[in-house]
Amino acid sequence: MSNWDNARRGRLSRLQAGAHLAEGKRVQARDATALLEAVIRPGDRVCLEGDNQKQADLLAVALAAADNRVVRDLHMVQSGIVLPEHLDVFENGIATRLDYAYSGPQSQRIAQLLFGGKIRLGAVHTYLELFARYFVDLTPQVALIAAVSADRDGNLYTGPNTEDTPVVVEATSFKNGVVIAQVNEIVDRVPRVDIPGDRVDFVIQSDKPFFVEPLFTRDPSAITETQILTAMLAIKGIYAPYGVRRLNHGIGFNTAAIELLLPTYGERLGLKGKVAAQWALNPHPTLIPAIESGWVESVHCFGSEVGMDEYIRARPDIFFTGPDGSLRSNRAFSQTAGLYACDLFIGSTLQIDLQGHSSTVTAGRIAGFGGAPNMGSDARGRRHPSAPWLQAGLEADPDSMPALRRGRKLIVQIGETFGDKNAPTFVERLDAIALAEKLSLDLAPIMIYGDDVSHIVTEEGIANLLLCRDADEREHAIRGVAGYTAVGRGRDPRMVERLRERRVIQRPEDLGINPLDANRNMLAARSVKDLVRWSGGLYAPPARFRNW
Amino acid sequence: MSNWDNARRGRLSRLQAGAHLAEGKRVQARDATALLEAVIRPGDRVCLEGDNQKQADLLAVALAAADNRVVRDLHMVQSGIVLPEHLDVFENGIATRLDYAYSGPQSQRIAQLLFGGKIRLGAVHTYLELFARYFVDLTPQVALIAAVSADRDGNLYTGPNTEDTPVVVEATSFKNGVVIAQVNEIVDRVPRVDIPGDRVDFVIQSDKPFFVEPLFTRDPSAITETQILTAMLAIKGIYAPYGVRRLNHGIGFNTAAIELLLPTYGERLGLKGKVAAQWALNPHPTLIPAIESGWVESVHCFGSEVGMDEYIRARPDIFFTGPDGSLRSNRAFSQTAGLYACDLFIGSTLQIDLQGHSSTVTAGRIAGFGGAPNMGSDARGRRHPSAPWLQAGLEADPDSMPALRRGRKLIVQIGETFGDKNAPTFVERLDAIALAEKLSLDLAPIMIYGDDVSHIVTEEGIANLLLCRDADEREHAIRGVAGYTAVGRGRDPRMVERLRERRVIQRPEDLGINPLDANRNMLAARSVKDLVRWSGGLYAPPARFRNW
Repeated sequence: MSNWDNARRGRLSRLQAGAHLAEGKRVQARDATALLEAVIRPGDRVCLEGDNQKQADLLAVALAAADNRVVRDLHMVQSGIVLPEHLDVFENGIATRLDYAYSGPQSQRIAQLLFGGKIRLGAVHTYLELFARYFVDLTPQVALIAAVSADRDGNLYTGPNTEDTPVVVEATSFKNGVVIAQVNEIVDRVPRVDIPGDRVDFVIQSDKPFFVEPLFTRDPSAITETQILTAMLAIKGIYAPYGVRRLNHGIGFNTAAIELLLPTYGERLGLKGKVAAQWALNPHPTLIPAIESGWVESVHCFGSEVGMDEYIRARPDIFFTGPDGSLRSNRAFSQTAGLYACDLFIGSTLQIDLQGHSSTVTAGRIAGFGGAPNMGSDARGRRHPSAPWLQAGLEADPDSMPALRRGRKLIVQIGETFGDKNAPTFVERLDAIALAEKLSLDLAPIMIYGDDVSHIVTEEGIANLLLCRDADEREHAIRGVAGYTAVGRGRDPRMVERLRERRVIQRPEDLGINPLDANRNMLAARSVKDLVRWSGGLYAPPARFRNW
Repeated sequence: MSNWDNARRGRLSRLQAGAHLAEGKRVQARDATALLEAVIRPGDRVCLEGDNQKQADLLAVALAAADNRVVRDLHMVQSGIVLPEHLDVFENGIATRLDYAYSGPQSQRIAQLLFGGKIRLGAVHTYLELFARYFVDLTPQVALIAAVSADRDGNLYTGPNTEDTPVVVEATSFKNGVVIAQVNEIVDRVPRVDIPGDRVDFVIQSDKPFFVEPLFTRDPSAITETQILTAMLAIKGIYAPYGVRRLNHGIGFNTAAIELLLPTYGERLGLKGKVAAQWALNPHPTLIPAIESGWVESVHCFGSEVGMDEYIRARPDIFFTGPDGSLRSNRAFSQTAGLYACDLFIGSTLQIDLQGHSSTVTAGRIAGFGGAPNMGSDARGRRHPSAPWLQAGLEADPDSMPALRRGRKLIVQIGETFGDKNAPTFVERLDAIALAEKLSLDLAPIMIYGDDVSHIVTEEGIANLLLCRDADEREHAIRGVAGYTAVGRGRDPRMVERLRERRVIQRPEDLGINPLDANRNMLAARSVKDLVRWSGGLYAPPARFRNW
């Protein structure tokens, strides 16, 4: 006769092991490491909340300080590898296996640890995919999460950075796992209940607020005229003809330029209300002028952004907010919105090859994927039509029987032909492939596969890959917008001209855009200070973005 | 100067309009229609919780009884069109527009109302897609939901049928919407908090428990030997060679047969632990023998199933359960799990054409999609490898560069060549296409598109479409398993034999399966009573499944 409650009894024994450190659910910060040593078992799957922004930093430090004879062989399953401690646990022999989605600042060190064999990598995921596995084969036994405040019953208020917390807690607490939360304060009554207390086992009040990073703030003063040109091309050459109303933007300067051109260039083109109205997006400060100009109907957010809280509070018609007035973000649902309810995803990348595959991996850096593979993929399960989606589908497959024609998502790569340090964006072979070979990975870390990309935008023009009829046309469509990179110089000029005649390639002049018009006066805001002004003083940028 | 809180003020005025009917949040059942007339505004988007199982039936009746001069032009945005009242609101002139996902018992009447112009159809969605739009362009102004119990603060306990409630409430309440819950009882303290009370505005105690339908119960006594044969083929010809551990099953008898063959036939093949271990699935009673035999490691559920509550409670190592011991289901997360974390989806359909497109629409019936298009689609955003996924990818694209090779999801259609009333499953042209033309739909209601299908299983054998190299091969692979249907008889026998030599088509004998072995003695349970016995008396089937 089997036992059917091993995991539940395991949970109870963990709770008992931690109980002597707790008063009710509350544990003192100085006992954090002792709590983790008491509760975590060797080999556990642990989610140490590393979101895009919000970090359970006290718990990260506490885990990295654990005795590796007690806490060992952990399998870390978390979105972000962001803090040094997220990798210290591998160097310290506490954790050995890793499944994750995104690593910004740690991308170089994560590569070193992989090369050095300190990390056994499961996979680099897109967020929603990792969340999916929480319910199937990567369910955490312990979740270490962060919130703004807790009441005595453990009800949590996450504030605007709800992010991953609901999905992490749901997978853990309903499958016999233990949930430990760090909070900035303990209060009598939380402003709203983001996580019900019966899903939370221990609460630790931190001596300082959890770390949040302003990942989505792009200073308008750093936007170049080349980026403005690419933004004009995207608006006039893609947003307008397809009539894209529901969309997601990446976080680069090119898309920030688009946001800042909507109230100026977009207005002049008569596009207000016709494009860029409904968003799945973090609260980008550069979207403020478009919101204030009445372009934006709604924004659902993955997470929040530092400095945007008061502005969001004052715009409840636009943002999803709680009864307390602050943003309610939710990465799982916003990624779902990006996958199934948006008609366009546009973002930048570091490298694009001749098939249109793109990657942000370069030698020695494994940045991870974040949400791009999810939002930058054609959702084949989609069954609702929209004008842009049907038009893209028709371009991709004009000969199919109308009733059996599917739409296509618009997936746009935008950038300059040469990126940082003059490195060419277009390459014959992605660095990601060399990395996959070096590490013997089953899959190269491709951000977006070429067959999902619909358009590539550079300062040289737009390549519409939907209109390409074979691999050769596709290669030349890409070469045709690759400028003076080696890939661009490798073009057959006659072939490129033929593609241009068919509007597979469109130059600025083909769209009636004069590159000389692409200047910074076009931007609705030319500085962070301008953004503050647009917001009526509600936007409070972090210190490093203030130079006045 | 714009106002930025129109929606929030709208919410407050709605709450005020309903306040005179409420004591705290509580409204009497007799005042339900008056409450809806007070709170709902013409043109509102309304989600009337119609899940797969759980139904907000009191609120459905109350809405259908509303004065259509007051409550009118509603846009219904809900998963299921299940109760008669879900369509009465259209006949009564209360609602005019509809976006939905699934209609079982109402599929005939919904078609009539569409033909009659009483319904302006937005689209038929897959569940996750509709949820996605709740956060972008179909956010409800009013959600009418169902729960088991509420406390005085409006905290809700949904019991095992949590289903769609969290995602519906999140989209509504955080975007200035009004949430009205019907509950079976009001208690001092809910057994667990499924929905925090600050997201719930009004609570109505119903005079009878909400309606729940046993949609996922298949009586083993109705499983035929032909279905057993197809199940043997699937296990030995697909589950075994690919090593499928993470999966989802449809709800037909063929897949019920697979569930019942795991502890017998699967055991004999030595597959325990190697296949069918981790599931995204409703709690199918026919899975009980596999669970009791130690095949199953975990099951995450979309919703629950009538009669399974006590069994689930006693198996917390397998199911996701709450602190109260009952199942915690969640359709949004289980669909996400099905999309991104499962390697196989297998289900039945009503019609398959020569390209492998399938549909459950037949003349005069629009059943909707439910979850099949989502789980039966290749998730192109997926970035984690697994053995079955990589093997399927290699079969589909053997010539690609290894580092750029993607995996493929296994998407299997299983059924007999002739279905109900001897209607052929294989057809030259889907009825869905005729319907799309008749209603001038932008998209024909295709359940799963042929290019996503990897295998078709019938009693005649398995067609592996991944191995087909062109449309002609694909067509003959399909004809080759289409038996004595007109499509099957239209085969070129030499071509079919060539495909069989390449194992594109596999006959039972090619897999060492003797069709005469396919008999009901192979089933681990041959009746509902057997299932009860396997469960140790914990499974309590609904009366209509009890014949002893």
